[in-house]
Amino acid sequence: MPGPPPAVAAVRVAVRRALTQVPLGPPTAEPLLLVACSGGPDSSALAAGTGFVASRLGWRAGAVVVDHGLQEGSARVAQQAAALCHELGLDPVEVVAVEVVRTGEGPEADARRARYAVLADRADALGARAVLVGHTLEDQAEQVLLGLARGSGARSLSGMPPWRPLDAAADPGTGGALLLRPLLGVTRQQTLQACAELGLEPWQDPHNVDPRYARVRARRALADVAVDLGPGVVAGLARSADLLRDDADALDAAAETAYLGMGDPPWEAGRLRGLPRAVRTRLWRRAALASGSPGTDLTSEHLLAVDGLLTRWRGQGPLHLPGGVQASRTGEQVWIGRPT
Amino acid sequence: MPGPPPAVAAVRVAVRRALTQVPLGPPTAEPLLLVACSGGPDSSALAAGTGFVASRLGWRAGAVVVDHGLQEGSARVAQQAAALCHELGLDPVEVVAVEVVRTGEGPEADARRARYAVLADRADALGARAVLVGHTLEDQAEQVLLGLARGSGARSLSGMPPWRPLDAAADPGTGGALLLRPLLGVTRQQTLQACAELGLEPWQDPHNVDPRYARVRARRALADVAVDLGPGVVAGLARSADLLRDDADALDAAAETAYLGMGDPPWEAGRLRGLPRAVRTRLWRRAALASGSPGTDLTSEHLLAVDGLLTRWRGQGPLHLPGGVQASRTGEQVWIGRPT
Repeated sequence: MPGPPPAVAAVRVAVRRALTQVPLGPPTAEPLLLVACSGGPDSSALAAGTGFVASRLGWRAGAVVVDHGLQEGSARVAQQAAALCHELGLDPVEVVAVEVVRTGEGPEADARRARYAVLADRADALGARAVLVGHTLEDQAEQVLLGLARGSGARSLSGMPPWRPLDAAADPGTGGALLLRPLLGVTRQQTLQACAELGLEPWQDPHNVDPRYARVRARRALADVAVDLGPGVVAGLARSADLLRDDADALDAAAETAYLGMGDPPWEAGRLRGLPRAVRTRLWRRAALASGSPGTDLTSEHLLAVDGLLTRWRGQGPLHLPGGVQASRTGEQVWIGRPT
Repeated sequence: MPGPPPAVAAVRVAVRRALTQVPLGPPTAEPLLLVACSGGPDSSALAAGTGFVASRLGWRAGAVVVDHGLQEGSARVAQQAAALCHELGLDPVEVVAVEVVRTGEGPEADARRARYAVLADRADALGARAVLVGHTLEDQAEQVLLGLARGSGARSLSGMPPWRPLDAAADPGTGGALLLRPLLGVTRQQTLQACAELGLEPWQDPHNVDPRYARVRARRALADVAVDLGPGVVAGLARSADLLRDDADALDAAAETAYLGMGDPPWEAGRLRGLPRAVRTRLWRRAALASGSPGTDLTSEHLLAVDGLLTRWRGQGPLHLPGGVQASRTGEQVWIGRPT
């Protein structure tokens, strides 16, 4: 008996492996998975693979199609994606139209926020164990390139995690739904190939070639770098992301331990000097966030400036951080917080 | 009185700042700095800036020109570089011809090894306090891109440190000469401009456009990424490198502490599980190196496989690491070393 064609098999194996992260839950319930499907090649291949694997496991697989309403004809595209999911045997399949609220962070960030809010809402309403999204190896590599262009640290360069709580604010292990990215090790070429092997005709998003989008510019950058340095760069970037994610986890945990152990600021300079700088900068960030500094505005320059109160102390005055937070030093005491 | 032209000033400020890393040493001796000069724009601008700053500080500045003998006419190029250093008032100026020994690591690595051996030898013979090399912001960014293409971790992505002991094996603080890279925050455009402002005519290395060299391919990749993602990507890559260097320092130190604290393997699985994975993978690396595994052959895949003895234990047999080193688990004991 011949096995499935290779790209179809690669997607199924990736889904099967990702599902090992999903806690089994009560044995009486038939677990539900939800695929976020745009109708494009990546999420169509994912929908097919998830439908197949779920049926083998005795799980249920449904789909959520989000219509962002940002393009002419988006409702029709959403209906086609839903039809494809139905064909693949997914059930339930829901189409949800959202209004993307402009926050000033840019159209991509706004659409993402709206999309994830819908996914969390539907997972909650339907009691899904996990939501699966179709990011590929190239998406991961592009994410790393974008982080590099910004001059980011390890957390940002670690790209997208393969799984996390769907509600990012929830404590892991509290039983909420997971967000899974099974295809982070699968290439776009493989998802296209899988669709072809299955006779699916995915939709090609015209936004994917519009250079106004950071995502599209990152895609070009990745293609150029692959020409210059060889095609292995795509997997290389993704592998770096995995290593840096471990680093960021370890250092964030060390900073959290230090933060909880030291109580509220002010803190003794001598004790702070005993911590490595990579932990201290994360500690400053943690303290600034706790005082209400918005994380999106807090840069590594701010944190290194705070660290300078410790390492380049010449009696300088208080530092002003975003959100009205200040950092200052008096003698051997370093303080960070909101002036009362 | 007008100040110096802007690019000349930028190079001087960068040199002045880098010299703060040089310990003052005995007050009776006039400290000697040595510039590694190829005659190209970066090291010519550096030679000029170092000569200027040294004379203001009452220090001496000399130069070493290494003739690798790899190109037709390299002896003439070296003599021109030496003449330029003389003109700039540097003294002593030495030209050293080396034979580049082929080790199989590639022509660039071989030339680098030969070059640094000469620099260390001349610094030692002349009693230099520091050797200055002309790597720029772009060199740093290219270094990061090359590390990413290989899928490297934080240490490799942290690029070139702004200073380190010239003898990499020496303990910092033992009084040996430093290797300084003052221009890591200065662009190639600025070094070219500084040369023009000073009336210097630097040599243009034809190897800089030969795509057989990884360095040249990285230069193209950086140029392409800057077009796709904007010119800020160059400084962004360098800033990421700085942040990741702090991370690598902290995690390497944590692994070293764990290594020294646990004594020789075998180690208790329970104790190892208490360490974050980012520390454990560095610990495995440290132990493999200590048993004679060659660092250049040891990949993150090897280290993650060893970590699997802890996290995915199903009774698997010993793992074979480069250099005849093995890792194995028996019950709750994990061992890594060379079988006797």
